[in-house]
Amino acid sequence: MTAVTLSWEIPPLDEAARAAVLARQDRLTKPRGSLGRLETLSAALAAMQGTPQPRLRHKGVLVMAGDHGVTAAGVSAYPSEVTAQMVLNFVRGGAAISVLARQMGARLRVVDVGVAAEIPPHPHIYARKVRAGTANMLTEPAMRLDEARAALAVGAEVVAAEHAQGLDVLALGDMGIGNTTAAAALAAVFTGRSPAELVGRGTGLDDEGLQRKIRVVEAVLARHRPQAQAPLDTLAAVGGLEIAALAGAMLAAAERRIPVLLDGYIVTAAALVAVALQPRVRDYLIAAHASAETGHRWMLAFLGLEPLLRLDLRLGEGTGAVLALPLLEAAVRLLQEMATFDEAGVSERNAS
Amino acid sequence: MTAVTLSWEIPPLDEAARAAVLARQDRLTKPRGSLGRLETLSAALAAMQGTPQPRLRHKGVLVMAGDHGVTAAGVSAYPSEVTAQMVLNFVRGGAAISVLARQMGARLRVVDVGVAAEIPPHPHIYARKVRAGTANMLTEPAMRLDEARAALAVGAEVVAAEHAQGLDVLALGDMGIGNTTAAAALAAVFTGRSPAELVGRGTGLDDEGLQRKIRVVEAVLARHRPQAQAPLDTLAAVGGLEIAALAGAMLAAAERRIPVLLDGYIVTAAALVAVALQPRVRDYLIAAHASAETGHRWMLAFLGLEPLLRLDLRLGEGTGAVLALPLLEAAVRLLQEMATFDEAGVSERNAS
Repeated sequence: MTAVTLSWEIPPLDEAARAAVLARQDRLTKPRGSLGRLETLSAALAAMQGTPQPRLRHKGVLVMAGDHGVTAAGVSAYPSEVTAQMVLNFVRGGAAISVLARQMGARLRVVDVGVAAEIPPHPHIYARKVRAGTANMLTEPAMRLDEARAALAVGAEVVAAEHAQGLDVLALGDMGIGNTTAAAALAAVFTGRSPAELVGRGTGLDDEGLQRKIRVVEAVLARHRPQAQAPLDTLAAVGGLEIAALAGAMLAAAERRIPVLLDGYIVTAAALVAVALQPRVRDYLIAAHASAETGHRWMLAFLGLEPLLRLDLRLGEGTGAVLALPLLEAAVRLLQEMATFDEAGVSERNAS
Repeated sequence: MTAVTLSWEIPPLDEAARAAVLARQDRLTKPRGSLGRLETLSAALAAMQGTPQPRLRHKGVLVMAGDHGVTAAGVSAYPSEVTAQMVLNFVRGGAAISVLARQMGARLRVVDVGVAAEIPPHPHIYARKVRAGTANMLTEPAMRLDEARAALAVGAEVVAAEHAQGLDVLALGDMGIGNTTAAAALAAVFTGRSPAELVGRGTGLDDEGLQRKIRVVEAVLARHRPQAQAPLDTLAAVGGLEIAALAGAMLAAAERRIPVLLDGYIVTAAALVAVALQPRVRDYLIAAHASAETGHRWMLAFLGLEPLLRLDLRLGEGTGAVLALPLLEAAVRLLQEMATFDEAGVSERNAS
């Protein structure tokens, strides 16, 4: 077991860099504020990276994968074996996240932090299995406290390793059959909303399956009585190995001033855990998209994040996060490459 | 004056191609429908292009530029000379649309269909001035009927020329100080909504300027009494040269099965004109984004189009249209490059 310190030293945002970017935006050849969210986005990236010249040369995607014992309760439309099959599909290039990462020029790496099956070695897979899937949280905690700590540490360690190769922005994704159930339980604890508000159909449950899933989340909460004030215990009781690794990745990225693009339901649930562990991590989070999965909106509202995209995605894998990369790139390029009024010889607005 | 026929032969959508794409989507390694709007988007592109394998190799951006006599009434925060200055900024690479077109690998061309000032020759500018800006529509029609026809023909001719070089998707943009006033007047005619609902601050009017602009649009409508049933007369009376060229470009693109990405307020007003001239053009329109400009939403609602992006942009130039290109590309690449369940050896969902 890796020794883990759970203190995270996250630097404050660089407000001088933000102000410098906003001042430059006002000299570019466009009406003030007319690039809307792209202007505030470039300023936010500057504040996170601590420079008035934000950069996005090295783009990384980390997909954390783990299995869930609660699938025994029939909470998913897919069998658990799909987690391992999809991990291979990711690195062989045939999954949605593989296609999108290629399109966006982002480096895709997969982390086996808790897949039930054995995964053959592959240069793009981090083999960091803490255990072979969680326990069924209907009958016992999903994992022990030390396992939750170890999974958090895996996320942090992988971010450190990727950062050593260059990492200007980190898109996060998940794979784990059954993980919307764990995410819903975590969301209920941290947002205070009911399972009925937070539970959705995941990858495709019918009405009966949806009701069963709501009852499972209610039962899990009744059994473990997890508390928002004890985020690590909550994570261990009703979380997941990949969710813990995602939270650890966010914390480690924020420590290094690396902006984090959140994906949908699972990754945002992990953000709730990370923020409960260290609230300052929130400053480094960007909500890439609004998932079609019921309840994602409540997590984003709790975090105070406004999503960039609304495309009714509900796939996970980091697909929504990666789809927002061109918008970040546009924000940065506009800041870097647009001419000022002076440079272009364009008249400024009339005095009013 | 070019002789113009105003009959547009727009082919119906290829519903067999759409169905083939949707069927393939269901065999790809993801839960059915989990890619949301990207799935319907790839199917829509297939229906437009008439092939189950839509392609986006050649991406074009056309920015139509023209001036507006109504600026004499103080409807814009910027002087008219900015139109010509920005045209040069576009082709020299310093404008927002220049930066975004470069990022997206799209071919940017500018069309001078009615800029008041002389524009020096440039290989990326189509010199097609029909007249040097419109007349002040407060006192006379913006242009004569034959000028409106000629400007429509310019748009159509340029699309034909670009298509000859390869054009799989067309993003449209505008440049013209004062053109939100003309667009608001057109929108009032075609949507039936009031100027107060449709007029916005354009590039940055204050409260007094906004009220003045509303009164100008009301006065223009009272003077010319344009009718939705007479789209060409309406275009001539209260439109603009660049707006006419945009409508012509849409019609010519639809004739050639080229999907058209609408930008914001001005381009969507041109779409109202195009649809009034030939309703089938609507089948080939994709709403790229929802503008921050008041009233854009009413135009999109009238057209029945749902925007892909909501980024509070209000710049024009085609910036919103080009920002949606990576989403179209993602939709097409996912369709082309994802593995099927069989190919990847991934288990399908449990029978329910």
